[in-house]
Amino acid sequence: MKYKHIEKGVAAPKGFLASGVHSGIRNNADKNDLSLIYCEKPCFAAAVFTENLAKAAPVLVTQKNISDGKAQAIIANSKNANACTIDGIEKAQSMCTLVARELGISEEDVLVASTGIIGQTLPIEPIKKSIPKLVSALSKDGSNQAALGIMTTDLIPKELAIEFLIAGKKVRIGAIAKGSGMIHPNMATMLSFVTTDISITEAMLRMAIQDVTRDTFNMISIDGDTSTNDTFAVMASGEAGNPEIGKADSDYCAFRDALRYVCDLLSREMAKDGEGATKLLICETVNAADKESAKRVAKCVIGSSLVKSAMFGNDANWGRVLAAVGYSGADIYIDRVDIAFISPKGRIEVCKGGVGIGFDEDKALEILKEREITILVNLNDKDQAARAYGCDLTYEYVKINGDYRT
Amino acid sequence: MKYKHIEKGVAAPKGFLASGVHSGIRNNADKNDLSLIYCEKPCFAAAVFTENLAKAAPVLVTQKNISDGKAQAIIANSKNANACTIDGIEKAQSMCTLVARELGISEEDVLVASTGIIGQTLPIEPIKKSIPKLVSALSKDGSNQAALGIMTTDLIPKELAIEFLIAGKKVRIGAIAKGSGMIHPNMATMLSFVTTDISITEAMLRMAIQDVTRDTFNMISIDGDTSTNDTFAVMASGEAGNPEIGKADSDYCAFRDALRYVCDLLSREMAKDGEGATKLLICETVNAADKESAKRVAKCVIGSSLVKSAMFGNDANWGRVLAAVGYSGADIYIDRVDIAFISPKGRIEVCKGGVGIGFDEDKALEILKEREITILVNLNDKDQAARAYGCDLTYEYVKINGDYRT
Repeated sequence: MKYKHIEKGVAAPKGFLASGVHSGIRNNADKNDLSLIYCEKPCFAAAVFTENLAKAAPVLVTQKNISDGKAQAIIANSKNANACTIDGIEKAQSMCTLVARELGISEEDVLVASTGIIGQTLPIEPIKKSIPKLVSALSKDGSNQAALGIMTTDLIPKELAIEFLIAGKKVRIGAIAKGSGMIHPNMATMLSFVTTDISITEAMLRMAIQDVTRDTFNMISIDGDTSTNDTFAVMASGEAGNPEIGKADSDYCAFRDALRYVCDLLSREMAKDGEGATKLLICETVNAADKESAKRVAKCVIGSSLVKSAMFGNDANWGRVLAAVGYSGADIYIDRVDIAFISPKGRIEVCKGGVGIGFDEDKALEILKEREITILVNLNDKDQAARAYGCDLTYEYVKINGDYRT
Repeated sequence: MKYKHIEKGVAAPKGFLASGVHSGIRNNADKNDLSLIYCEKPCFAAAVFTENLAKAAPVLVTQKNISDGKAQAIIANSKNANACTIDGIEKAQSMCTLVARELGISEEDVLVASTGIIGQTLPIEPIKKSIPKLVSALSKDGSNQAALGIMTTDLIPKELAIEFLIAGKKVRIGAIAKGSGMIHPNMATMLSFVTTDISITEAMLRMAIQDVTRDTFNMISIDGDTSTNDTFAVMASGEAGNPEIGKADSDYCAFRDALRYVCDLLSREMAKDGEGATKLLICETVNAADKESAKRVAKCVIGSSLVKSAMFGNDANWGRVLAAVGYSGADIYIDRVDIAFISPKGRIEVCKGGVGIGFDEDKALEILKEREITILVNLNDKDQAARAYGCDLTYEYVKINGDYRT
C-alpha cells in the first residue's frame, strides 16, 4: 500500500487541530452542529465551490476570504444552509469575525461553510455563545467531533487521514466531509475539508485541487440536484519539511495523486451514504473515444432514476443502462456497447454490441444483491475511461425528502 | 370554448377506424396489447421520434416508411419495446407486412411502434395469429380499445377528440397516447398517435408537428430518462373538405393551435399519470430573458428529484426550487427570482428577489395537498414564458421501477 492510513483525520497533519460541539442551531442536543479546523500558523489554501448561481452566503464570504490564497481556520455549521436569506452575508461574516477574535487571528483568514435547510434565517446567538467552547475544545483528537458537526442526513461521519513520503519526508493529508442529498456535479461534494502539512505554493495547491475535483467529487451523483453550498477547501501548513513544491514536477504529481486518492475515497463514501441509499453504484466507462464522452456516459448512467430503481430492486435491467448511454449526448456507437454487472459475487455480461445476450438470471440476482455494484460500459471505440459514483433510488430517499423540513 | 370535445378518439376524424385486442404478448388476457389505427385512404403523415441514439427497431422502420410523407395505418404493441435485440428490425418489418397484407395496403404505408421492456425478443407469433382479429375489429368505436392496447404502467387510457371550424368546415382531431415512465425531453411522449381529417399538405403537416412538439411533449419530464421508443405520429385524411392548407396562413395557424391544444392536454395527462404519481406538477416560468431560458428553468424545476419529493410530502420547500433555478444553466439573475405555489386552494408567495419571505405554513400545506400544483417562477427580466409538466416522486415510483421486469 502506497498510502498508510493513520488516525486523527484533519488533525493528523502537523500544525492542525479540530473540534466540534453542539451549539443549539439544531434542537437535538446529542448531535453536533458546529465544527472548527484550525492551523497554528497561516496556511496556503485553495477551494472549489458550487457552480449553482444560487450560492449560499458562506460560499460568497469564503470566496472573498480565500482570494489571497491564505487561510488559518475553517468554521462550519450544519442544520441551516444560510442560503437565500436576507441577512446571510452578515451572518456568515459574523461567524468569521467571532471565531477569529476568539482565536486571535485575522477574520480574513477564516473560511466559513454551512449545510442544511435553504432559506431559513441562521440563528447567530447559539453560534456566538458556543464559540469559546468550540475554540477551547480544539485538539489533536477533535477531528471526529468536527466530522460529526457537519453531518445532515448522513448516517456515517466521513473522516480519514493518510501518510506517505515526498522527497524522503513524511507528509500527511487529513480530511472530513459530508455528503448525502442534493449532490450532483458540478461540485458534488457538499462540504469537504482537507488539511495537509506538505510544503507547496498556493498556485500548485490550487492546480492540485482543480485537477482532483474533476475526477472525484464532480463524478458523484446522488440525485441530480446541485447544492447552493458545496465547498471543497484545502489548507496546507507546510510543516512536513519537504522542499516546497513550486512546479508540476514528480513531487507535485505524488501529492496530487495522494490528494486524488483521499478525494476518491471520500467520493465513494458520500455516494454509498447517499440519502436513503442501500447500495454504492459505480459506473465504469472504458474504451471511449474521448475523456468527455467517457465521463458523460458514466454520469448519465449513474444519474438515471430508472437504473437506480432497478439496482434497488436487484433487477439486471440492462436496457435502462443502454438507454442512458443512448441519451447521454456522448460521442458513441450504440451498436458497439457492451454492458456487464460486477460485484464481489462475480461478473455477468448482459449486453454485447448494443443487443441483449442470454444470461443466467439467478446468477445476475446473486451479483446484484451485493451492496457495491459496478456497471461496466465498454464503448469499444478508443482508449479513454471514466468512473462515476452514485447510489440506488429507494423508498427511503423519497421519505427523507418528502418531509425534510418537518 | 373554441374546441368542442367529441367522442370516438382517433376514429372521430373522417376516414379513420381503430381497434385493439389482446394478442398474447402479455400474459394477462384482460389487458389489450396490440392496437391498430387505419384510414380508408392513404394519408399525408408526419412524425417525430426519440433523440436517444439507442433507437428501437420500430422507430427505425417507421422513419423509413414515413420518409415519403404518406401512411395509411399504425400498428402498435405494448409489453415489449422491441428494442436492443438482434432481430428487432425483422420483427418490426413483419408487423408492417402482416397487417398490410390483411388490410390490402402497401407495407410501406404502415407505421409501427412498440412500448414495454427493452432488450427482450419480441414474440411475433401472437401478433401474427391476432392480426385477422385486429383488422376485423376495426371500427368507428375502436379508439378506446386501441388506447388500452398501448398502455404499460399507465393507469388511465389517454384518448380525446375535438372538433372546430376551418374556413367554415368542421375539422376533427383525434388522439390516443401512452406515457408513464422513462419520459423526458426530447421526445417526452412515449407513444402518441393523432388523426385528423383536415386537408393539408405533407410539408405543412410536418411543420405543425414540429412546432407543437417543442412546447408540449418536449416539456414533460417524469423521471429524466429518455426512452428508446418515443414516437409521435400524425395522419391527415383530408376528408374534412376545407381548402387544402399549403402555406403558413391563418388556416394553418388555426390547425396548429388546435393540434397544440390536443397535445398540451395529452402532455398534462401523461404527467399526471406518471409512474407512481399522486400529483400533476406544472412549472410556469414567466418574464424570462429569452424562450430558451424560460424552458430550461421550467424543465429543471420539474425534473428536480428534491422538488418532486417535497411536493409528494406537501412541503413548501421553495429553497429546492430556487436551487434548481440556480443550476439550470439558464440566463437569469438569481437575486430577482420570485417563487409562488398555486393550486385550486389558492396561491402563496414564498420567495421574493431570491430570498425567503415569511409565509403561513398552514396555508401552504392546504395549497400543496391538492392534486395539481403550479410552481410559478418569475424571473423578473424580460417577457418570455414557458410551461413544463411533471409529477411528484413517490414510494410507488421506486416500487414500480424496482421490479418492472418481474
